[in-house]
Amino acid sequence: MSELQELTGPVEIIGTGLLGTSVALACRRAGLDVLLSDRNADHVRTASGLGAGRPRQAGDRPQLVVVATPPSTLGAVIADALEQTETYGAVVTDVGSVKGAPLQVLAERTDLGRYVGSHPMAGSERSGPLAASASLFDGRPWAITPHAASDPAATALVTALVELCGGVPLSFTPDDHDRAVARTSHVPHLMAVLMAGRLAEAPEGHLRLSGQGVRDVTRIAAGDPALYGQIVAGNAGAVTALLTEVRTQLDGLIDAVSAGDDVALAAVLQQGVRGTRAIPAKHGGPVVAMGSLFVAVPDQAGELARLFADAGEIGVNIEDVRIDHDPGRQVGQVELVVALDEAERMLSALESRGWAIHR
Amino acid sequence: MSELQELTGPVEIIGTGLLGTSVALACRRAGLDVLLSDRNADHVRTASGLGAGRPRQAGDRPQLVVVATPPSTLGAVIADALEQTETYGAVVTDVGSVKGAPLQVLAERTDLGRYVGSHPMAGSERSGPLAASASLFDGRPWAITPHAASDPAATALVTALVELCGGVPLSFTPDDHDRAVARTSHVPHLMAVLMAGRLAEAPEGHLRLSGQGVRDVTRIAAGDPALYGQIVAGNAGAVTALLTEVRTQLDGLIDAVSAGDDVALAAVLQQGVRGTRAIPAKHGGPVVAMGSLFVAVPDQAGELARLFADAGEIGVNIEDVRIDHDPGRQVGQVELVVALDEAERMLSALESRGWAIHR
Repeated sequence: MSELQELTGPVEIIGTGLLGTSVALACRRAGLDVLLSDRNADHVRTASGLGAGRPRQAGDRPQLVVVATPPSTLGAVIADALEQTETYGAVVTDVGSVKGAPLQVLAERTDLGRYVGSHPMAGSERSGPLAASASLFDGRPWAITPHAASDPAATALVTALVELCGGVPLSFTPDDHDRAVARTSHVPHLMAVLMAGRLAEAPEGHLRLSGQGVRDVTRIAAGDPALYGQIVAGNAGAVTALLTEVRTQLDGLIDAVSAGDDVALAAVLQQGVRGTRAIPAKHGGPVVAMGSLFVAVPDQAGELARLFADAGEIGVNIEDVRIDHDPGRQVGQVELVVALDEAERMLSALESRGWAIHR
Repeated sequence: MSELQELTGPVEIIGTGLLGTSVALACRRAGLDVLLSDRNADHVRTASGLGAGRPRQAGDRPQLVVVATPPSTLGAVIADALEQTETYGAVVTDVGSVKGAPLQVLAERTDLGRYVGSHPMAGSERSGPLAASASLFDGRPWAITPHAASDPAATALVTALVELCGGVPLSFTPDDHDRAVARTSHVPHLMAVLMAGRLAEAPEGHLRLSGQGVRDVTRIAAGDPALYGQIVAGNAGAVTALLTEVRTQLDGLIDAVSAGDDVALAAVLQQGVRGTRAIPAKHGGPVVAMGSLFVAVPDQAGELARLFADAGEIGVNIEDVRIDHDPGRQVGQVELVVALDEAERMLSALESRGWAIHR
């Protein structure tokens, strides 16, 4: 199997939920034969009805198996896929959020050369095959995590799958991947959860003073507790290590605030500013200074369209948008983020078109 | 002074930064005489040049004084304003983020009936008079915080100012206000800072896996450390109390994750979900179920406009927008949030207009 081969299919998808069915649709879009399996036969029928492929039959010999089952099942399902495809040596990958825990389950196996884990940074607040889309992975980072025994040809085949799905392949060791997502995903989720937990206990009326800030900090805490419970449990080591660092910092912060130590407090705040700047810029390119414009937009169908049409005619690219709803009336404050050196021109051009706007 | 009076001016603004100059512009818009003062004479000239009012002269007798100086100076400047206006009994308010600390500075005074604190929930990432706007407060919550000795007529005059500025007046005791903003603003800021601090120490390459979630959680940590240092220090009691609650929860979370206690972990995650639902809905109205649609939009001027124009013609109101930039190429994934019962119609209508879209 060490010979490099093109991804020609068939591709088997085990688990026809959001991610599995989306991979299947992307493979179908590329003309590959796709074989679907799921413990729930209804899901296979649904995914098949969406054009994601056909139910797997006895005698099918997939070139690549993609395991897309819940996090806690991955090790066992990957092992089963390796066994099922032993005679013809299919490559097996998975799309789970954690890479170390399944490898531990697999550690005793001698056929792990054919397994290379992966993890697309894509999802939706919805789940199940009906939420799937061939474009779910368009331009998204997709970690590929070969382990020490992975066959380079298997890694190449998984990379071909990522590219076929429109994802951006990024290589990590399984351990590095798990530490990275603890920092960029699992611990941010838990910090949002801890903050949201304090909101759940707010006295009557206090949350009327909520603005966009607290909404942003806590938004992802609304995610499915069952799914995040499995993810966090599957990455317990890296998550606990980072949470312990957070606790040390939190202890220092409490001490600084209660002692009135403005210097120590300033150091914590400054490190936070540095952290926000450490996140890679849009498109991975150089950081461009951005400016925000705030526009009052009546909350009616068509008004946002009129704003964006005006912005389009002005010819300044909108880098980001944020809508902050007014609690008091049917007007939204829309924040348009544009390149800093375009902000003045955009402001005066929109103002001259009658928009109530400020920086 | 106990007689109720209309807000007829003059209004004196002490501190012509972002907030002060914005209040001044709103008062000018309503035709009131506005008197400007600032330790920095350049700022007064700038604000005056923007049409925010005229420099205060000896002999001016403001009806209402608005103190808009940095948080740590509020008590002293309010005391000075009360003294300066003693002979004719002007009402004094301020727009600071913390209400208890200035009151402590003022505690010995016998003329506090004329002082009523306030706090608009508005701001910008910019500061200074050039960032000001008469529309900064449109539809924003604006806390009014009478203390035990406040004259009801003074409270009424400050309420009139809030309404003139387009804000939504919300009444709190000073102590309740400070505890509320600790929960909705100061501690969320510090949680974002703690998370961002962990990003600042990320190993090379790990942050390439950053998605929209971690960006949202940490966004406000980019705020000015000097300003937030003063705000947090001025609300140390309420902030420390809440941070201590967070620490207790964090300890429990670390224990749950490291012990593999899935039940305890699930309870923490569930409380987070409840917290996100406790934030008041848009416009303070009933919570409407929302659905998200994800659209791939080329990152070129005009493309967003075309999307919103199409959405406008379809006639489904867009409740929120989020742009998630792809690291790999010049395409943004735009999340459109619409009422759940409109989502299917919007999806198929946009799809039929050629947009790559999924839920």
